[in-house]
Amino acid sequence: MTNKERILTQLIAAKGNPISGQKLADELSISRTMIWKYLKALEEEGYVLEAVKKKGYILQKIPDIVSKERITPLLETKELGRTILYYPVCDSTQNIAAETARDGAPHGTLVITEVQTSGRGRLERAWNSSANKGIWMSVIIRPEISPHQAPQFTLVSAVAITKAIESLTGCVPEIKWPNDLLINGKKVTGILTELQADMDRVQSIIIGIGVNVNQDSNSFNESIQSIATSLKMETGIEIDRAALVAKILFYLEKYSRMYVENGFEPIKLLWESYSCTIGKRIRASLLRETLEGVAIGITADGVLELRLDTGEIRGIYSADINLIDK
Amino acid sequence: MTNKERILTQLIAAKGNPISGQKLADELSISRTMIWKYLKALEEEGYVLEAVKKKGYILQKIPDIVSKERITPLLETKELGRTILYYPVCDSTQNIAAETARDGAPHGTLVITEVQTSGRGRLERAWNSSANKGIWMSVIIRPEISPHQAPQFTLVSAVAITKAIESLTGCVPEIKWPNDLLINGKKVTGILTELQADMDRVQSIIIGIGVNVNQDSNSFNESIQSIATSLKMETGIEIDRAALVAKILFYLEKYSRMYVENGFEPIKLLWESYSCTIGKRIRASLLRETLEGVAIGITADGVLELRLDTGEIRGIYSADINLIDK
Repeated sequence: MTNKERILTQLIAAKGNPISGQKLADELSISRTMIWKYLKALEEEGYVLEAVKKKGYILQKIPDIVSKERITPLLETKELGRTILYYPVCDSTQNIAAETARDGAPHGTLVITEVQTSGRGRLERAWNSSANKGIWMSVIIRPEISPHQAPQFTLVSAVAITKAIESLTGCVPEIKWPNDLLINGKKVTGILTELQADMDRVQSIIIGIGVNVNQDSNSFNESIQSIATSLKMETGIEIDRAALVAKILFYLEKYSRMYVENGFEPIKLLWESYSCTIGKRIRASLLRETLEGVAIGITADGVLELRLDTGEIRGIYSADINLIDK
Repeated sequence: MTNKERILTQLIAAKGNPISGQKLADELSISRTMIWKYLKALEEEGYVLEAVKKKGYILQKIPDIVSKERITPLLETKELGRTILYYPVCDSTQNIAAETARDGAPHGTLVITEVQTSGRGRLERAWNSSANKGIWMSVIIRPEISPHQAPQFTLVSAVAITKAIESLTGCVPEIKWPNDLLINGKKVTGILTELQADMDRVQSIIIGIGVNVNQDSNSFNESIQSIATSLKMETGIEIDRAALVAKILFYLEKYSRMYVENGFEPIKLLWESYSCTIGKRIRASLLRETLEGVAIGITADGVLELRLDTGEIRGIYSADINLIDK
């Protein structure tokens, strides 16, 4: 932690009680002048501090940002999020993460922003990333796995984010294969998993995560209002985005480790328990054809198995899925 | 083609007969002064020209380099090699190609050099890339395929390079799974296939190719003399590297198209016909274990199938393979 983060952690831990400048200076072994400079810097980032005479400083308001200073004190991880690149604005966290990964960024590096000017979703679609309302982040992970295992990591991520949302809000999203999280049938989260690999080893997997958190219905373009929702719209309450980021990293680390140590089976069971795809009749739009049938499960490789009306079973690696009534 | 390439093409086509400066100027619609400047530039690159009074210029000697000017006139492809980045020296064509691919380099871009200062092989091993003696190149291809098909492309490349060597030298290499070409049991070519992808689509495949061409036995470090060979050592003749590059690109384009249009089956048959692995007893060193058994074939996914002594059949995605006697 930096000194600024240490001071912030102390202020938060004091829960509305004052902490004296002298106490902070003693604990960090730095001068009171330096303490004062760090407090000014926090105020510039939007933290509101009250100075109480002869008692010290009280933290009155935490700004609604997802900066390194906000996230670090909330982390419960060993590796994920221990390096954070924060941008008030950027084009796409996924682009920055891909470049940073090539330059050797460590396992667990988090790239996060308040607003993306050209956020990307699957299949080169644009992703609406409105300012300060959602979570727009990319995590670089470097698991020691073979490239054919990489698609399973999309499913690991989906389970981790579902758990994080459930534990923080009580709302339980459903997973739509491969990587959309829905609440009441509307999309609340998208995951874009990208890969740098040779044929022997994965060099890095970059998990791009977009969560609609505090948007109101009018935050969305008319074109997506009927299919998108946010956690605030579903729960009625404003969510602390930094806390949700920390929870996502916690479960991502937990389930990644589970996957590397125990294989795909436990993840598969969790994924299936949250899935709204399995057992349903679906239409799958593939690169070159469209198939209709019943989704009967996912394989050990993370491939969706579809039973066509002819009885033939087809493995789907990549497709757009629509649930259909019949 | 650039003007310099056009002039070179004309000089080569004249087969030792003189071409007048005026004729070149007329055909290219540029001044004789400009023609003279291009001829000087060619001489600086190592081309030897003889000026015959009142007749014109004769091309006496082509330098032993693999520059854009040397390769372009030899190309028989539509797309591969139509963009060439040539470096007299570089760290690694694979690194340059990966960066260039991320920046949007077109399908078919060739990165080639005379000498690599830190050439890479599979599994982060160094690759000996001595100056002006071998082919050290990387090709960026952007096939419309799903990431799980990418390992098959290593096998497409192995078949293409085998065909190119066979057609130019008459020597037929054997393929050792997944991607080494051997002549008389010694390594003549290595292939390193790298991938940038999301879970739906391959963004680019970068095929790194190293061919030992004109090395003598003392060109190799003592440590690899017993396991490495060159085309010159096997055939006794000096090979035109630029011609081999053009042939490799020709077959790579041909078999890539065959693969995308007709699937893996025809490639699999070709690969198996050149393979020295199938039917043999092998030891496979995997990331976490070592297996011994008989290699019985490759699957439709390009996975090597190994029958263990217990009768169990295991699919090998990535391993070091050694043929063993029993």
